[in-house]
Amino acid sequence: MKIEGQHRRAIEALSDQHAVRIIDQTALPHQLTWLTLETLADAANAIKVMQVRGAPLIGATAAYGLAFAMAKSGSDASLEKGYDTLLATRPTAVNLRWALDRVRAVLQPLASKLRAEAAWAEAGKIAEEDVKANQTIGGHGHRVFREVLADKMGGGVLNILTHCNAGWLACVDWGTAVAPIYQAHDAGLKVHVWVSETRPRGQGASLTAWELKQHGVPHTLIVDNEAGHLIQRGLVDLCIVGADRVASNGDVANKIGTYLKALACKTHHVPFYVALPSSTIDWTIRNGIKEIPIEQRSAREVTHVSGLNAKGVREEVLICPEGTQARNDGFDVTPGRYITELITEYGTFSTNATDMRRLRLAAGL
Amino acid sequence: MKIEGQHRRAIEALSDQHAVRIIDQTALPHQLTWLTLETLADAANAIKVMQVRGAPLIGATAAYGLAFAMAKSGSDASLEKGYDTLLATRPTAVNLRWALDRVRAVLQPLASKLRAEAAWAEAGKIAEEDVKANQTIGGHGHRVFREVLADKMGGGVLNILTHCNAGWLACVDWGTAVAPIYQAHDAGLKVHVWVSETRPRGQGASLTAWELKQHGVPHTLIVDNEAGHLIQRGLVDLCIVGADRVASNGDVANKIGTYLKALACKTHHVPFYVALPSSTIDWTIRNGIKEIPIEQRSAREVTHVSGLNAKGVREEVLICPEGTQARNDGFDVTPGRYITELITEYGTFSTNATDMRRLRLAAGL
Repeated sequence: MKIEGQHRRAIEALSDQHAVRIIDQTALPHQLTWLTLETLADAANAIKVMQVRGAPLIGATAAYGLAFAMAKSGSDASLEKGYDTLLATRPTAVNLRWALDRVRAVLQPLASKLRAEAAWAEAGKIAEEDVKANQTIGGHGHRVFREVLADKMGGGVLNILTHCNAGWLACVDWGTAVAPIYQAHDAGLKVHVWVSETRPRGQGASLTAWELKQHGVPHTLIVDNEAGHLIQRGLVDLCIVGADRVASNGDVANKIGTYLKALACKTHHVPFYVALPSSTIDWTIRNGIKEIPIEQRSAREVTHVSGLNAKGVREEVLICPEGTQARNDGFDVTPGRYITELITEYGTFSTNATDMRRLRLAAGL
Repeated sequence: MKIEGQHRRAIEALSDQHAVRIIDQTALPHQLTWLTLETLADAANAIKVMQVRGAPLIGATAAYGLAFAMAKSGSDASLEKGYDTLLATRPTAVNLRWALDRVRAVLQPLASKLRAEAAWAEAGKIAEEDVKANQTIGGHGHRVFREVLADKMGGGVLNILTHCNAGWLACVDWGTAVAPIYQAHDAGLKVHVWVSETRPRGQGASLTAWELKQHGVPHTLIVDNEAGHLIQRGLVDLCIVGADRVASNGDVANKIGTYLKALACKTHHVPFYVALPSSTIDWTIRNGIKEIPIEQRSAREVTHVSGLNAKGVREEVLICPEGTQARNDGFDVTPGRYITELITEYGTFSTNATDMRRLRLAAGL
């Protein structure tokens, strides 16, 4: 999508150098820095320290990371080492494993000297397919938005609540949950987005607000605590979020705090949508609440907040007594029954068993 | 309660000077600063800029504020000006009006020269009664905690979730929601408190965590988004919060974010308690959701976070793109049906009509 009027992607291949360019998302929204990744270590580090984040972008970056490993050595040992190194970077997002499995499956039958080119091509395909899938998701979501607005008493502005960042910065382009917002806005629908801050890392405040501002979509920042009140007062027409991993029963692991929003939406009959490419579904998991591993992150993300000080310098401040113990689950799991529809590249699906089977067939799995 | 082993109160009368000492709560947890208030303007400002906050402490401070006004002039005009100035400082907390009404009712029949002494005495009574009420609330809550722990499979540690600060810093002493925690802890019950950060102002992180640390109560800080996950995973045995205003139908206005926790507790059959002195109940309000005014606070509280930088200096940092618009409701309203029991100085009460009537009778209203 657009940065200062220019169309960019969150990961851009530099084909002549067999390298990629990414935005250092830890520096946003205060600074726009492009970084070049060209080694396995570069890619693994970028995922680990969250210079790239968001399930689809993690997948694409990991695929390129494996291509970098192959460029150094196409041996089986190099392939396995690359695979293991990248897989260990983040535990919750299933696209990571999905992308690595896909590239490895292409490489394994090949002679080692052919693997570098093949890996590079496959990573590129994954990125292109992600763009296409998200554009399609945006179209389906846009249609859903029009239906919700048509049902709204009095019409007017469609108030959309989102959490964390499931925008183009979480993908290669378009985004998942934000893709329909861009398409609706570009098509002239009056949309207004409630951007939930998303503590502890603040991806709503720092990434979603930045994206929407760059693209000119009206939005208002709120603290995570506000969602219940706004939903209770009828100020939210729909909620849409992305997903880090979806189980085959429709349970959705997404950024911590998603579940509370889903509860409030259910209580007040506000539709709650999850937008995702089908690669985010882990068909091996039958019960999301019981089986999806939840990443435990550092206490420091809770006890400290990072931002720009009065002098325009990025700084981290301590918000509690020194030495306070904290717990930091990166994700929570929303049971499928709270989700109105999954919005995928194959269309919209309920989370009941019949629809999940239909989705699996559509995905050819 | 205790600060570095010494027993202190959140507001302390300096009788020889007709002044009071308060803790500047905007400087906590990083700095402990006592301020002396001796004029109406001092008191009004301390409430307005939240050097004192929490419904009961606002009430006590306002009562002293009226006494300061009377010390300057005991005229009817001075009384009305003092009343109006103090009432305008914060819109949601009902104790403010309750305390002002009570002092004014004592003063109105008196000759103007008698008013200063009478106001000082009445303010002192309000403070003492608050301490006593909260100690009693603590006793009732402690009994409730023992019952919940007795029902807990396997016993062990009682995991308590609280939001914002309803501790002794919100009152004169003891606190409302935290009073039972202190009493249970002091009596040897194994308690552990999940302290919800409470964005935007972070009173959980800065005040509740500080209080509990000073008193030696085991606790863990979490972001507001964590509550749903912890409750879903059985890691919360009960939730207890304070209140800023309770309607006669049992609806509870409390810090923004309370409602989301109540929804999660209801869903997972975790008891949800509200601890309050009966002065927090506004019997003139029949429907809390429709009638309790919700304070709109500044966008800057959302767009900025204050804390201690690496050099140990307090600093405010911007967490979103410059110029981002924000909405900031100070409170939300939890419907009475989500509340297991109100814990008051008169014992515990459901929010059904019969119990609310019983509570009103107990309060002699």
